[in-house]
Amino acid sequence: MKKPLEEAKWLSRSVMAARGEAGGVIKDERRISESDQGTYHYTIGRYAEPVLRVNPGTRIVVETKDAFEGKIETERHMPSELIEMPFTNPQNGPILVDGARKGDVLAVYIESIRPRGPQPRGTTCFLPEFGLLVGTDYTATLNEPLPETVRKVRVDEDGIGWSERITLPYTPFIGTIGVAPEIDSISSLWPGKHGGNMDLPDVSEGNVIYLPVRADDGYLYLGDCHATQGDGEICGVAIEMAAEVTLVVDLIRDWPIQWPRVESKDWIMSVGSVRPLEDAVRIAYRDLIYWMAEQYGFDQLEAYMLLTQCGRVRVGNVVDPNYTVGASIPRHYLA
Amino acid sequence: MKKPLEEAKWLSRSVMAARGEAGGVIKDERRISESDQGTYHYTIGRYAEPVLRVNPGTRIVVETKDAFEGKIETERHMPSELIEMPFTNPQNGPILVDGARKGDVLAVYIESIRPRGPQPRGTTCFLPEFGLLVGTDYTATLNEPLPETVRKVRVDEDGIGWSERITLPYTPFIGTIGVAPEIDSISSLWPGKHGGNMDLPDVSEGNVIYLPVRADDGYLYLGDCHATQGDGEICGVAIEMAAEVTLVVDLIRDWPIQWPRVESKDWIMSVGSVRPLEDAVRIAYRDLIYWMAEQYGFDQLEAYMLLTQCGRVRVGNVVDPNYTVGASIPRHYLA
Amino acid sequence: MKKPLEEAKWLSRSVMAARGEAGGVIKDERRISESDQGTYHYTIGRYAEPVLRVNPGTRIVVETKDAFEGKIETERHMPSELIEMPFTNPQNGPILVDGARKGDVLAVYIESIRPRGPQPRGTTCFLPEFGLLVGTDYTATLNEPLPETVRKVRVDEDGIGWSERITLPYTPFIGTIGVAPEIDSISSLWPGKHGGNMDLPDVSEGNVIYLPVRADDGYLYLGDCHATQGDGEICGVAIEMAAEVTLVVDLIRDWPIQWPRVESKDWIMSVGSVRPLEDAVRIAYRDLIYWMAEQYGFDQLEAYMLLTQCGRVRVGNVVDPNYTVGASIPRHYLA
Amino acid sequence: MKKPLEEAKWLSRSVMAARGEAGGVIKDERRISESDQGTYHYTIGRYAEPVLRVNPGTRIVVETKDAFEGKIETERHMPSELIEMPFTNPQNGPILVDGARKGDVLAVYIESIRPRGPQPRGTTCFLPEFGLLVGTDYTATLNEPLPETVRKVRVDEDGIGWSERITLPYTPFIGTIGVAPEIDSISSLWPGKHGGNMDLPDVSEGNVIYLPVRADDGYLYLGDCHATQGDGEICGVAIEMAAEVTLVVDLIRDWPIQWPRVESKDWIMSVGSVRPLEDAVRIAYRDLIYWMAEQYGFDQLEAYMLLTQCGRVRVGNVVDPNYTVGASIPRHYLA
Repeated sequence: MKKPLEEAKWLSRSVMAARGEAGGVIKDERRISESDQGTYHYTIGRYAEPVLRVNPGTRIVVETKDAFEGKIETERHMPSELIEMPFTNPQNGPILVDGARKGDVLAVYIESIRPRGPQPRGTTCFLPEFGLLVGTDYTATLNEPLPETVRKVRVDEDGIGWSERITLPYTPFIGTIGVAPEIDSISSLWPGKHGGNMDLPDVSEGNVIYLPVRADDGYLYLGDCHATQGDGEICGVAIEMAAEVTLVVDLIRDWPIQWPRVESKDWIMSVGSVRPLEDAVRIAYRDLIYWMAEQYGFDQLEAYMLLTQCGRVRVGNVVDPNYTVGASIPRHYLA
Repeated sequence: MKKPLEEAKWLSRSVMAARGEAGGVIKDERRISESDQGTYHYTIGRYAEPVLRVNPGTRIVVETKDAFEGKIETERHMPSELIEMPFTNPQNGPILVDGARKGDVLAVYIESIRPRGPQPRGTTCFLPEFGLLVGTDYTATLNEPLPETVRKVRVDEDGIGWSERITLPYTPFIGTIGVAPEIDSISSLWPGKHGGNMDLPDVSEGNVIYLPVRADDGYLYLGDCHATQGDGEICGVAIEMAAEVTLVVDLIRDWPIQWPRVESKDWIMSVGSVRPLEDAVRIAYRDLIYWMAEQYGFDQLEAYMLLTQCGRVRVGNVVDPNYTVGASIPRHYLA
Repeated sequence: MKKPLEEAKWLSRSVMAARGEAGGVIKDERRISESDQGTYHYTIGRYAEPVLRVNPGTRIVVETKDAFEGKIETERHMPSELIEMPFTNPQNGPILVDGARKGDVLAVYIESIRPRGPQPRGTTCFLPEFGLLVGTDYTATLNEPLPETVRKVRVDEDGIGWSERITLPYTPFIGTIGVAPEIDSISSLWPGKHGGNMDLPDVSEGNVIYLPVRADDGYLYLGDCHATQGDGEICGVAIEMAAEVTLVVDLIRDWPIQWPRVESKDWIMSVGSVRPLEDAVRIAYRDLIYWMAEQYGFDQLEAYMLLTQCGRVRVGNVVDPNYTVGASIPRHYLA
Repeated sequence: MKKPLEEAKWLSRSVMAARGEAGGVIKDERRISESDQGTYHYTIGRYAEPVLRVNPGTRIVVETKDAFEGKIETERHMPSELIEMPFTNPQNGPILVDGARKGDVLAVYIESIRPRGPQPRGTTCFLPEFGLLVGTDYTATLNEPLPETVRKVRVDEDGIGWSERITLPYTPFIGTIGVAPEIDSISSLWPGKHGGNMDLPDVSEGNVIYLPVRADDGYLYLGDCHATQGDGEICGVAIEMAAEVTLVVDLIRDWPIQWPRVESKDWIMSVGSVRPLEDAVRIAYRDLIYWMAEQYGFDQLEAYMLLTQCGRVRVGNVVDPNYTVGASIPRHYLA
């Protein structure tokens, strides 16, 4: 459900509107089609050729590919034969944001995420040694892997055809969105301080994600849209799809955040990504406390005690190299 | 908001109604007042004197104490001076359920949880070396502890007076409920396969919790009601209160579940408790898969793939000796 | 290799000699044969009938059974058919130590551990869903378990006959030794503050283990001797054997330790047991810092910095419900 | 203690000698002085300018800097004022190895590690929010950090002057050594499949480390020598020193290992780096099983059972972004 920036009234209360260089106004429109993008990227850093350079206040329409780059076209395709690591989870970008400097923050408002490509265009599957309920590369076991299995499903904006009996809701979000580290380049499969492969369902239409800039011009990447996903993305593969994503990018100066943050109409959220999962919860909640203190005047310990009573935890993924958690508080406690 | 068993129409679809000895009908009513209870218990096992013996199909009204046994009456009281470990988190019980045998399951429907005692009757606090965002007994650090702090709040069924500006909703639940292990006796501070100190907000009015019987007669204990709680109970202390809890207890024969399960009008949930947190998620989701397979005819791997798209995770606590997670699926996918 | 207390000269520097009620002198000798023991125990608490009451300064010879209670006699025996949980890991005891009170410490010097019973008397095996490199009850997976497998080996004090080519050294230790919690009763499969199933190879001949008393008279249990074991006990089953263990028990008044400690001729060690493994390392190292500060005059932060340069970590087990780690420092840094 | 390759007789049994392109013979000698290096690197990838290109069979003498790039000259220097993240842990390199291709392995034999620079040239310190026994960036807490503290010590090949009373042994090793990922670039503070900041004391004189090549020419980096270190490097900073390191680099074709491996005269070791620590143990032991199967003819499950009895675990670090563990087996079991 498209949520144009102009109609999102709550945005006036956002950091993006209050402190963004463009103040929540769209001054330019750009597009990155598949052919504009040409080469998709599998690592998030400042070593790739930019695909686009924009000013703060630009609406950008981006054609993303699915996490398998569209190679899994039927249920007879075996991912392990088609995918060679590390060339999975292709990203659009990098998009350079003029003037972004270390210590600044990119604000990205998500207007819409539309499925694209031929049906059945949704893909999920079991990959060998990947997922929460199997032995993996890291949680190394000697058990036999599960059988590789592919499932292709129809995806439309009014629903996902899981089976004759079950239709899943279309609740799309951006699985991977991030900015370049200062000197490293991070696999598009990893989430972290830079954002990346968070697989967090709250990075969705109508919300703003904030990403801490580390390299000049920010170097924004995105891809890996999901038509829907359960908490934790447990088999490791949501309903993956190619999408047309519409974003508005703005720039906030001198906001020294350490981890991604998200704002919606109803809540504010801090995001942590690390293993084990309790440390991701720690990161997210502590950052939320810092945010409540810095912007809403809470004493830190008062915020800690209050969140004990009303904080909410979203488990994004428990399958990627880092696990991702969002901790949030409803806005009505902040007023 | 009282939810009498007779009015809970969804219960007809529950395991409790379908397989309970009493079939969801109340045949007897009993009460455990504070004076009936006399001695409260700090360990859950079969070594304590029973306070009550009931048949399946009994409504029981129980007067629980708060986790500090009511000792923290003002904000000047220091918990560390009043509480001597392990004598905290007092439990009512044990309640013996006639005929319960290893391999059976106690079904407990929660009709109501009402606050009781003099105002301000809600208590939260910072305890030394306890909580998610401090060094603890297990996550041992050399940092100085936070200052011990107590907060007393008014609690009524229409809200919790956090501050002049903030009223928290009254969303009560039972923090600790469990049955005796076969031969061990487990601290009332621990959650585990036997239930116990799960601090899971879904153990609330209108829902059924299932607890796997290990010792003859089950030995049901409960206590530790919370007026409300955020996900994770991060400082370690929710809004603790004394309560009048109304339960209906039934018995299900030969249901070899390994971990607690919960049913509500809208979903079914499996519960796992262990460290690290990802293992609690693993336990909960795997048990949910088992449940979907055994009762609803899903192939296990099909259930795994479907939950990847629509499963929900509740983080109960990330502070107790084991962390507790509930994994759930909406009922409409199960029909 | 028997190490009689009288010949262990280093003991004069131990806490046992310096502060023990019996001051390192043997005043009495007792024996617990299999028939004396009669019923072995699977839970460590103060609810079982004592098998023996001793004064500090008593040498006790104990006939322990192996972790499977001797039921796995051949390689054709399937553990899952012979063992019904929780009736595994049988313990001798409880041995009451006269005068032991909460806040005191039992000191147990291990003189010898001798294999007993008919050959091949060593047993190791793969149990379903148990071990580091398989999905387990807690690290729950959907993979197929490994095949159940039993291996029986000859065990003598001069070696263990693993195969024609490989002889393993006989380096025996006590896998499980602990005291009763104050009010709980803990499965003999669990390690924790009370000691228990630590599976720590340093609990061996010639060393002293210290166990913090919680219940009056201490209630000492032991069993589960291993002929040898690798770090982590990764498949979950060392070379299990029945043994004749000779101990000397002493009592130290008012030593408020929280976790087990071990002394050898060459080092002092603190022991932590919890999940995840890094928290066990945290507990062990922090306790070792506390010990260095309290007994050897180190500033805590100085000890922290020094251990960074010379501390040693032993990984006991990474398979039991809690993982066990010992952190140690050579004595020559303490003088 | 210098261990020239020519005198290391055990090497004839190593993979390096058996399969190396240069077969354990030195054909060339090169040097990278501080001025040759010029710019040191803080990220390990293929995006930096090579400092040297060598053929397999080259001895290289490298002047490494300490982890703080020599900026902490006295105990009055505050690291937080001198170090700006991510510019810490400077690395020499990249050294390109001619002909190295993805699927090959770099073999690096360490001949000697000598301290260099003006005395006191050893540095350890407490950094804010870094270390095992404090709240950190990931294990986020609200406690006050420990005081920043610097300790400078004299380092010579015959000992480290910790205090008047305590001399620590000089047991030097390379804290950080690794090769470029295929497309990413990884902070020099991280250990992983590529090697990197493992802080593993077994990467020492007389041993060989094997690193799996991912990028053409390998791109070898190294630095961060430690004069000595305890298991876990618990405060996060060993005795850091500038060093003159002498290596011999060889190339092994088509050896598809996934993680670093180490060989010494007495044992073979696999290395895993990840959080939580038990997963690092899993990785290391599983890889060791794979190695025993592929090279020494063990059945995998036989190796698993044998390692349960005789495997050894070294905890390298429990403080870096990933924790590092080495699992080893003595050579005499492999013959």
